[in-house]
Amino acid sequence: MELWFTEKQTKALGLSCLVKRTIHAETTPYQELAIIETEQYGRMLVLDGMVMLTEADEFVYHEMIAHVPLSVHQNPRHVLVIGGGDGGTVREILKHESVERVVLAEIDERVVETSREYLPSVSSGFNDPRLVMAIGDGIEHARQHPGEYDVIIVDSTEPIGPAAGLFGTEFFRLAAAALREGGLISAQTESPFINGDLIRRTHQGLSSVFPFRRLYLASIPTYPSGLWSFTLVCNHEPPYLSPRPLPGVECKYYSGDVHRAAFALPPFVAALVAGD
Amino acid sequence: MELWFTEKQTKALGLSCLVKRTIHAETTPYQELAIIETEQYGRMLVLDGMVMLTEADEFVYHEMIAHVPLSVHQNPRHVLVIGGGDGGTVREILKHESVERVVLAEIDERVVETSREYLPSVSSGFNDPRLVMAIGDGIEHARQHPGEYDVIIVDSTEPIGPAAGLFGTEFFRLAAAALREGGLISAQTESPFINGDLIRRTHQGLSSVFPFRRLYLASIPTYPSGLWSFTLVCNHEPPYLSPRPLPGVECKYYSGDVHRAAFALPPFVAALVAGD
Repeated sequence: MELWFTEKQTKALGLSCLVKRTIHAETTPYQELAIIETEQYGRMLVLDGMVMLTEADEFVYHEMIAHVPLSVHQNPRHVLVIGGGDGGTVREILKHESVERVVLAEIDERVVETSREYLPSVSSGFNDPRLVMAIGDGIEHARQHPGEYDVIIVDSTEPIGPAAGLFGTEFFRLAAAALREGGLISAQTESPFINGDLIRRTHQGLSSVFPFRRLYLASIPTYPSGLWSFTLVCNHEPPYLSPRPLPGVECKYYSGDVHRAAFALPPFVAALVAGD
Repeated sequence: MELWFTEKQTKALGLSCLVKRTIHAETTPYQELAIIETEQYGRMLVLDGMVMLTEADEFVYHEMIAHVPLSVHQNPRHVLVIGGGDGGTVREILKHESVERVVLAEIDERVVETSREYLPSVSSGFNDPRLVMAIGDGIEHARQHPGEYDVIIVDSTEPIGPAAGLFGTEFFRLAAAALREGGLISAQTESPFINGDLIRRTHQGLSSVFPFRRLYLASIPTYPSGLWSFTLVCNHEPPYLSPRPLPGVECKYYSGDVHRAAFALPPFVAALVAGD
């Protein structure tokens, strides 16, 4: 018998993976959580039926959401991750020697614990002494820590369920206030092929808070359409096309050239944030 | 009742689209051919169960396989397309004013006729007087026309079935011989996430024929993994990072910046063609 997991990425689109076995499944206070072992992409973390990561392609997402802002900031020391309970983003941030402290504000502790147990290659930074676990509401954390962070990374799930607030203007204002001078924020902002309206609306919302906003792209096979967007925002125009070299930071997807290339938007994508 | 079409992209991976209706289905002398109307991506051309194109995302593939070589060549006048019977590549080539003649060497006439009938936005160049239909074996065509083409575009299906020969060294030799001085070839070379071995083998085969070879990338949602590779080859090093401006060539994916960015390979992709 073959078992297949299918994420209905939209009402009319599905991605299916052959499953070797279900490793873990539970209902947390916030969402349905499962870890399954797939034939194609290794272990997969599924929240509310949506693929959050797989062992085979998570490096793209985590490297691109972390190293782009961290290489543009001249000396990132204090970093906040909102969401990101699996630990992949934390793992990448900790590759930076300048970073003294990473705060992980994940609302669902069970994501953290499950990743620690079943996704060791993703959660490998959890024992680093520079990591501070701040289980709870990331929006509230930002509110209570004004002027504290050099870089904030919004590593959220889809804009429904527990992460809905992370795409709104009110959140952007709190996040902006939590930045130190010269600080930067990166956020995942969905697929230009599937969620063009969301990208447009999110950038319109951001424009009332941040004078500088740039979309950048990466290829993530297990996310809808395979093309994913991130947004870099800042209170001033950072040298976003001139990333610092990152000696000692080993990557499979990110490089200085890939960084610059990620900001080269195809015209149909540029149109989503035109006049922005 | 919902009807879904699923392409098993590998033995362990499927992409599924909700189907509004089947528009056309037949068995040609070469393959099974179908046109279906999908809810997500519009009309879809399916050959032997594999997605060849959809109306919603075909522009990426066709713009990138055509405009990259045509913008690097200084004055492309004679162009050969091997495969590509749907006409999308021809449509893009014909946007170039310098092009005097496009020869379409498609082995399966039914692909051409079906696209003409059911995919008018793709086959829109079929009535252009600069187009020469050469229904038949593209390898044989190349053999019989040495020194004739400025650009050859290998717009093939997967390396199984009728297109198997188009990934081999013997074909590359014939294609090289069909080029005029300064000529270039582009070919689709599958997904770095799924078909890394094929990319590696193909580039090794190419290295015995062409001194210059470069992989480039584009995001195509309906192809396996969503990240697709193309290969540009030439007898000399062309100015591949300095494409000519293309005034009057309107695109949705291609631009000069996207062209340059497409050659910025993530380290895991660069490793596939390292030492190449």
